[in-house]
Amino acid sequence: MSIRIGIMGYGNIGRGVECAVRHAPDMELAAVFTRRDPGRVSVLTPGVPVLPAQEAMAHADGIDVLMLCGGSATDLPVQTPLYARRFHVVDSFDTHADIPAHFDAVDRAAREGGRVAVISAGWDPGLFSLNRLLGGAVLPDGADYTFWGRGISQGHSDAIRRVEGVADARQYTVPVESALAAVRAGQTPSLTTRQKHTRECYVVAKPGADLAKIEHDIITMKNYFDEYDTTVHFVSQQELDRGHAGMPHGGFVIRSGKTGWEKEHGSVMEFRLALDSNPEFTASVLVACARAAHRMAQQGQTGCKTMLDIPPALLSPLDAATLRKTLL
Amino acid sequence: MSIRIGIMGYGNIGRGVECAVRHAPDMELAAVFTRRDPGRVSVLTPGVPVLPAQEAMAHADGIDVLMLCGGSATDLPVQTPLYARRFHVVDSFDTHADIPAHFDAVDRAAREGGRVAVISAGWDPGLFSLNRLLGGAVLPDGADYTFWGRGISQGHSDAIRRVEGVADARQYTVPVESALAAVRAGQTPSLTTRQKHTRECYVVAKPGADLAKIEHDIITMKNYFDEYDTTVHFVSQQELDRGHAGMPHGGFVIRSGKTGWEKEHGSVMEFRLALDSNPEFTASVLVACARAAHRMAQQGQTGCKTMLDIPPALLSPLDAATLRKTLL
Repeated sequence: MSIRIGIMGYGNIGRGVECAVRHAPDMELAAVFTRRDPGRVSVLTPGVPVLPAQEAMAHADGIDVLMLCGGSATDLPVQTPLYARRFHVVDSFDTHADIPAHFDAVDRAAREGGRVAVISAGWDPGLFSLNRLLGGAVLPDGADYTFWGRGISQGHSDAIRRVEGVADARQYTVPVESALAAVRAGQTPSLTTRQKHTRECYVVAKPGADLAKIEHDIITMKNYFDEYDTTVHFVSQQELDRGHAGMPHGGFVIRSGKTGWEKEHGSVMEFRLALDSNPEFTASVLVACARAAHRMAQQGQTGCKTMLDIPPALLSPLDAATLRKTLL
Repeated sequence: MSIRIGIMGYGNIGRGVECAVRHAPDMELAAVFTRRDPGRVSVLTPGVPVLPAQEAMAHADGIDVLMLCGGSATDLPVQTPLYARRFHVVDSFDTHADIPAHFDAVDRAAREGGRVAVISAGWDPGLFSLNRLLGGAVLPDGADYTFWGRGISQGHSDAIRRVEGVADARQYTVPVESALAAVRAGQTPSLTTRQKHTRECYVVAKPGADLAKIEHDIITMKNYFDEYDTTVHFVSQQELDRGHAGMPHGGFVIRSGKTGWEKEHGSVMEFRLALDSNPEFTASVLVACARAAHRMAQQGQTGCKTMLDIPPALLSPLDAATLRKTLL
């Protein structure tokens, strides 16, 4: 029987989950829940009901795993503990500093409800975290590097849009090529924030706005841009829509370490992602985690898990014997 | 208390395990077992006993995990089921086609003995298998590519040494740059064996040998070279020893797939290894798996496992809360 998936929140991630479920051989979409007027939300999958978020609890028996597709700032800290009492759930909570507190709150709720909750799934946190773990476990004498990009940062794009005189904007995070090349070659440089990434901004100014002031306000913005080399390109709305409408992202996790009695031999482990659609790929990881959550629940497990806790075989639609025969 | 490691077989992998245990914060080497005369085997770790292989069973109480460092052809098919009845064990069995049968034999023995056995650990099988699994689980609509090298293939080097007139040889497996570049860029070409790898041979001929015949015998050798573009370089023994004494290896696992409702967006997942010492890195993976085996045993698990079955957190010396706080 297919794993019946529910989606809570129909934004970019929610729609990405819908697409990933379509292509998963062992899943079906059971319902989409939204806080908007359900009559005004149209989903891609024929015949799937769109229901008000507050009715979700009443549909728990028809859903094997509920995918929580809200934002990390305000939605997930409330939603994940709430729904983990009644559903097996997966979220993509990505405020790194708050993960331990989120884990504890969700773990308590999931154990009380006898459910499995996978939190902080996706690629960072998620697959990148997994690769940082593998690097440190296999090469304890070494250094870790994470580079992001080239890709759109939603948070930085939003920050630029709040600058006076800005009508619209997209911001790309870009790894510094020379730093990346040095690390990939097995060197272990000490790199400052500025030496690892640059920030490229494509900005549509409002008519009559002071471009020099906009540029200054962006590149000096605390926490977002002041520690980076930032370039600002003013473009028309049409140029922005034509050339910068996608949501590409990706990056690198590199572990550079030593083996041997006197640590005389170098090893480099590298994991790279290059994604045309960040939310669709993130959602694809969430859907693989939903499969694992369903199976862990069937094994009688409860509580909060991250991708670091999931036996990898549980992520795959193939059974263990087939995996051993075909992938090992 | 440290995890007490035993090593069965003191070749390249066994010595690599010894080095990795030295650098693991939570492990100590308890004993080395050898089929050679123990008096003639000298290990690197001061104070560690070297004992005859046949005495291993008598030392089971002093060893938490026994690392089986023999060869896949004849040693491990016998040793792993034998020792899995009495020890928690880890092996690097790498005859891909025989893994299912090896798994079954080891699983039976380990369950009967109430032990945990991790088989086929290392990088391929091992970390590469894990990445093939992740690729297929996250991007079901896609294609897998594994490239090996540039690195020394022990099996192919041995095969050349058996050619008439050859005194010594090393063989490098080399990915074809153009094929690798196409796959890394997200293309999904169909590639023949010849289009994926070339083979570079460094050969020391015996005095008076017929070089043209040696070259012909190598490049036409069935199963080893006939399906590849192979180049043969004749060198002196000194040149071979000076320039080709190391055991570098590595490679790439690349998954290229599509996301989106109509599969309109590309994603590339790439895992790369570049290793100065293949056996030391392989051994470092085995040692991380020994930690996981020890922990799974403490949880009450028994039977045969592969790296696809191990919750990643168990590979790390850090506890789960620290991993969530620092890596997620």
